[in-house]
Amino acid sequence: MRNKRPSPNRQKAVVLLSGGIDSSTTLCLAKKQGYKVSCLIFDYGQRHKRELDSAKRIAQKARCKYYVLKISLPWKGSALLDRRIAIPKPENPKTRKPENLIPATYVPARNTIFLSFGLSFAEAIGARTIFIGANAIDFSGYPDCRPDYIKEFNRLAKLATKTGIEGCTIKISAPLINKSKAQIIKLGKSLGVSYQLTWSCYKGGKFPCNRCDSCLIRAKGFREARIEDPLLNEGK
Amino acid sequence: MRNKRPSPNRQKAVVLLSGGIDSSTTLCLAKKQGYKVSCLIFDYGQRHKRELDSAKRIAQKARCKYYVLKISLPWKGSALLDRRIAIPKPENPKTRKPENLIPATYVPARNTIFLSFGLSFAEAIGARTIFIGANAIDFSGYPDCRPDYIKEFNRLAKLATKTGIEGCTIKISAPLINKSKAQIIKLGKSLGVSYQLTWSCYKGGKFPCNRCDSCLIRAKGFREARIEDPLLNEGK
Repeated sequence: MRNKRPSPNRQKAVVLLSGGIDSSTTLCLAKKQGYKVSCLIFDYGQRHKRELDSAKRIAQKARCKYYVLKISLPWKGSALLDRRIAIPKPENPKTRKPENLIPATYVPARNTIFLSFGLSFAEAIGARTIFIGANAIDFSGYPDCRPDYIKEFNRLAKLATKTGIEGCTIKISAPLINKSKAQIIKLGKSLGVSYQLTWSCYKGGKFPCNRCDSCLIRAKGFREARIEDPLLNEGK
Repeated sequence: MRNKRPSPNRQKAVVLLSGGIDSSTTLCLAKKQGYKVSCLIFDYGQRHKRELDSAKRIAQKARCKYYVLKISLPWKGSALLDRRIAIPKPENPKTRKPENLIPATYVPARNTIFLSFGLSFAEAIGARTIFIGANAIDFSGYPDCRPDYIKEFNRLAKLATKTGIEGCTIKISAPLINKSKAQIIKLGKSLGVSYQLTWSCYKGGKFPCNRCDSCLIRAKGFREARIEDPLLNEGK
């Protein structure tokens, strides 16, 4: 991390860390802003377990405390949880209508579950900000990655907690929500994010498949940012 | 269950079941209204594990499917999770100000976590209602048991899910929220709730302590309803 400006207060923050580009960039942004960061990493039975290792390594590199929470979602209902459902073929995110085409990789209420745990953790440790790498642009049209959703969760957080009722706000911050993947990668590069440690591929392989929605969005992002993806030649 | 009126549609519903009086009554109410109910039971490291057995037996008696979800809250922060924090002595719920006196048994963001899982489960199985036994009267002043909170979660549910974005509502129903414990017990009695199977005591003992907040609220409820608590003489 370069150009770190430690805040005199060193306020605590929670970062929800998946090990992908967005959450890793968010983590570095939170640290740059001077927060004392604790990370929450979720093991929710995702196919791409590989991202958990990435998340842990990224948290360690950033010298942050982290918890890995194991979450059981026995009802499946998503291609990310159930190998019987195919990972969908990529579509052009610019042309599809998000309200009609939420893909099979959508996990029911995933970010609501993650933010709830984030809220509980933040309240328990006295953090006043929860950072999430949610992104509504260049992504898969998930409902719980949109600005309206984050705004609504912020309203809920005030009523849901002792902290909120007592007049202190626990704020959900989604600093990347309106950025393109290329903008995020450029920002991350300037912050010194170790993109070689990140993982994006939805499939559970040893190397990125370079074919799934998530791999293609990553590739397009690096291409548009004119930055070489350090994972580009893995497995070739 | 008496006087059950099966609905022609048999819509699915999720009931969040703790094994206490409120959620058990809520379960019977949902069944009375004709819903095909699946229960979610949460093992979140609570002291009073005994309530999990109660919840399972109550779900079985109502012939409902149920899942027990194990949730790890490693950050503690509540007398219900951490034996080093004392279960507080009871206060008169009529005289204390709820905004000032949220007790040590409050678990940070517990109902938000529970409702998030409920939302995920409901969406995965196609249920359109989530029942929660939250109750703002005769209880402990928890922020996430209040009508405003439930209303806000309903707003969030519309934006949080594919179902909501596509125009179908998953509704959070808290039918007991404004009832006194005595009113709930009278209602439950008329629905045939097996109160001998329920568990209220916050302490982890084999028998109710009859001293903690939760035991005293239960006792007062039965007294005011002029109904004998079938657990009254347990352990005596």
